[in-house]
Amino acid sequence: MIIRNTTKMLLIEDDPNDIELIQLALGDYHFVNQLDIVEDGEQALQYLFGTEESSLLSPLPRLIWLDLKLPKISGIQVLEAIRSDPRTQNLVVVVMTSSAEDRDLEACYNLGVNSYIVKPFDFQQFIEIARQVGFYWMMLNEPPLSRYNSRD
Amino acid sequence: MIIRNTTKMLLIEDDPNDIELIQLALGDYHFVNQLDIVEDGEQALQYLFGTEESSLLSPLPRLIWLDLKLPKISGIQVLEAIRSDPRTQNLVVVVMTSSAEDRDLEACYNLGVNSYIVKPFDFQQFIEIARQVGFYWMMLNEPPLSRYNSRD
Repeated sequence: MIIRNTTKMLLIEDDPNDIELIQLALGDYHFVNQLDIVEDGEQALQYLFGTEESSLLSPLPRLIWLDLKLPKISGIQVLEAIRSDPRTQNLVVVVMTSSAEDRDLEACYNLGVNSYIVKPFDFQQFIEIARQVGFYWMMLNEPPLSRYNSRD
Repeated sequence: MIIRNTTKMLLIEDDPNDIELIQLALGDYHFVNQLDIVEDGEQALQYLFGTEESSLLSPLPRLIWLDLKLPKISGIQVLEAIRSDPRTQNLVVVVMTSSAEDRDLEACYNLGVNSYIVKPFDFQQFIEIARQVGFYWMMLNEPPLSRYNSRD
């Protein structure tokens, strides 16, 4: 099933401070209410792909904010899973991480990340950048056709 | 050879009005001087890959603005060529087009476009959006490691 104009976002982030800053940044926009949050890679995969038992039927997010250093399953493995499944392969994924290491950067671009943002240390700068990331992908970018994540 | 922090942009666009609007939009930033322009798909491929005779050694662009409806070789074919060559496969490509057709949207995301922007009809809006696109990719996004487009 194909739908349009979902305003749902998925934040995959384990740091409570960063979660709060992103929520603050999106507070100016009505779509802050559409932010779902999961705190490790395993939960992220369950959110996106469901489990054998559950048959989710909710729209896939228009934007995924992905941290790299996550408990259980890393951000890079989550990205790999997203790009490997035809139901999710075109989802917009923005990595937002404290790592500016070449290895992470190359791995993400090799896997087809849409954008890679290095988190600034300064809180005000962090909020401002998160605000601009939200605006760009939710207001300017034309997203791929979104599909429900049903089990079929 | 790997370099960092190139500020070069490549605009692939055949409409002189749209070229002018993008130049206007980037006028606020010093990197407007780094905008190279080619006006059809064939020139775009020559710019990126060189020819048998020439052995270019200039940094590949940090951002490619790609129109879809181009003379000679279409924007989608240019995107396909970029993503098929290991020297260019990770380059940041933003499609900026008047087409909001599902077919084009899906083709671009299937080929791994970084972002897809629909050109607004209104001139002022066009300039404002182009300004924000330039800012996002040149100032916020951490680009992939850039390579010179030498022939080896």
